[in-house]
Amino acid sequence: MRVNAYAAPSAGQPLAPTTIERREVGANDVLIAVDYAGICHSDIHTVNGDWGPQPFPVVPGHEIVGTVTEVGSDVARHAVGDRVGVGCMVKSCGTCDNCRNGDEQYCRDGMVGTYAATDRDGTTTQGGYSTHVVVDADYVLSVPESLDAAAAAPLLCAGITTYSPLKHWQAGPGKRVAVVGLGGLGHMAVKIAHAMGAEVTVLSQSLKKQEDGLRLGADHYFATSDPDTFEALASSFDLIINTVSAKIDVSAYLGLLAVNGAMVNVGAPAEPLSLNVFSLLSNRRTFAGSMIGGIAETQEMLDFCAEHGIVSEVEVIAADQVNEAYERVLASDVRYRFVIDTSTLG
Amino acid sequence: MRVNAYAAPSAGQPLAPTTIERREVGANDVLIAVDYAGICHSDIHTVNGDWGPQPFPVVPGHEIVGTVTEVGSDVARHAVGDRVGVGCMVKSCGTCDNCRNGDEQYCRDGMVGTYAATDRDGTTTQGGYSTHVVVDADYVLSVPESLDAAAAAPLLCAGITTYSPLKHWQAGPGKRVAVVGLGGLGHMAVKIAHAMGAEVTVLSQSLKKQEDGLRLGADHYFATSDPDTFEALASSFDLIINTVSAKIDVSAYLGLLAVNGAMVNVGAPAEPLSLNVFSLLSNRRTFAGSMIGGIAETQEMLDFCAEHGIVSEVEVIAADQVNEAYERVLASDVRYRFVIDTSTLG
Repeated sequence: MRVNAYAAPSAGQPLAPTTIERREVGANDVLIAVDYAGICHSDIHTVNGDWGPQPFPVVPGHEIVGTVTEVGSDVARHAVGDRVGVGCMVKSCGTCDNCRNGDEQYCRDGMVGTYAATDRDGTTTQGGYSTHVVVDADYVLSVPESLDAAAAAPLLCAGITTYSPLKHWQAGPGKRVAVVGLGGLGHMAVKIAHAMGAEVTVLSQSLKKQEDGLRLGADHYFATSDPDTFEALASSFDLIINTVSAKIDVSAYLGLLAVNGAMVNVGAPAEPLSLNVFSLLSNRRTFAGSMIGGIAETQEMLDFCAEHGIVSEVEVIAADQVNEAYERVLASDVRYRFVIDTSTLG
Repeated sequence: MRVNAYAAPSAGQPLAPTTIERREVGANDVLIAVDYAGICHSDIHTVNGDWGPQPFPVVPGHEIVGTVTEVGSDVARHAVGDRVGVGCMVKSCGTCDNCRNGDEQYCRDGMVGTYAATDRDGTTTQGGYSTHVVVDADYVLSVPESLDAAAAAPLLCAGITTYSPLKHWQAGPGKRVAVVGLGGLGHMAVKIAHAMGAEVTVLSQSLKKQEDGLRLGADHYFATSDPDTFEALASSFDLIINTVSAKIDVSAYLGLLAVNGAMVNVGAPAEPLSLNVFSLLSNRRTFAGSMIGGIAETQEMLDFCAEHGIVSEVEVIAADQVNEAYERVLASDVRYRFVIDTSTLG
């Protein structure tokens, strides 16, 4: 099956319209007509080659919302006409301890990414900047109809990436949660942490987006460019979700954690970070990382978002605006996520 | 009250006999005749000035076991003749949230260290390398009579420093625990983790102490100088207790953690460590620190050790052997802790 898509032909080149082949619908597969695909910062890293060589041409997109148009003979959990979603992974071994525990993202065999990854059949996966995808039913999520389809797309990556550590480190009533950076991930972290009942503080470079932050659910907003911030907030948070991938002064942020507090990175700078271990010894602090979430947990997150009316703040664009959108993401000029209307792929 | 002691006269100078003044026994104080005082690596760091300027002369010693010889009028929990212990702290504010939660070591006002610290009355604390100490009863532990007094002394620092993170990160049956470094702290970690029911692996530079490690309770023993070790043990531990303060390749050790695994430093190198954050993202790993333990927890540890017959492996020395012992500690030539017999102080 030949379908329209937008692909990067090689590293650093602008994306352009193309067609790609989708596999036939297998017994456990779902054919999805893509309605919307979010633009994640990692799409840009990948096509720019920041994370090493890629199997070009690459069709990015792992924040996919669409409609089921065909299901394989063994598929019970999804039916034609259902609104579904696909996130960052489309397969894992399913048998290792991590997969069995619902941590497919940490599959011992390696999860298969939604694009630019080698699938179990040896082919290269291609993502959501296309009219259709064929995905193993076990990796297809149900997207509640109450959520706006376009605004729900970023939940599949930005949503689960922040929900998972907030849940794991027990954000909730009585917990003081800080979110570092108010971008695509950060704005989701604020909404979700607030809905979980935590007291939410945004730590942003400046106060430029303060009004937004408070509207989205933050209780407090501080500028990290102000050194007083680090003194005023010393030893005060139970959890810090760091959505900033750039190199930051980790030890300074760790100093903001109370006893047993954790700072969790959901992204990583390409270069190693330097860290003063004394800042961990004091207050029994932890510095941790978290990568998306498991499949069951992603469904749980979607249901949680439906229950609390949470979606992403999005700017919907046509496919031919993708390259311009990439420029604006790199310039932090988006509030807060671009989503491609894939009907414009023709 | 003038008592005999061994003190470092200035940074880097050998310790020498001296006399120091102990305060009068206040209403909530306990006067302890010191029987044994362990030698901790941090004693050496302190008197060498590695951790900044100190209020010399300094009498080190925060692994103290002794006998109560006098109690203040308000003291109910200790009586003359009791065998007691004093660890790394002799006071904290007692009113902040951390103190109230039993985390006095993380007192928001700062705990008062057993030596070289400024006490609440403005005087400088002096440690256990002396015939007597006067300590606030709330910071005096009961040392079970079933434990050998000399061998129990290191429990007050090395014991609680390893017990606390093992307990906090739930070492126990079904948990795979690695201990990095088999020294004063490491050998206690092995004994305690084994007694908690965990599967214990020692990660040591070489296999020199393998026989000891297995005798002390380790199930496995690997040399970290062998690069195959890091491949063979990838993603296999739930908890790593790092007792090595020297700079190590943290990212390599983090790679040994399974999903949700934690590596906990109980010491810290003076210089910052470099860390690849991707090693945290993968497997949702955490890098943490832990500093001694609270007072109630220290008592719990002592009772646990009595129940399981755990003490330190010690070499008892006379006070005039202290400087030689320091040299041997720095050369890692001790199995596994020196303890001063304070009756030799005259």
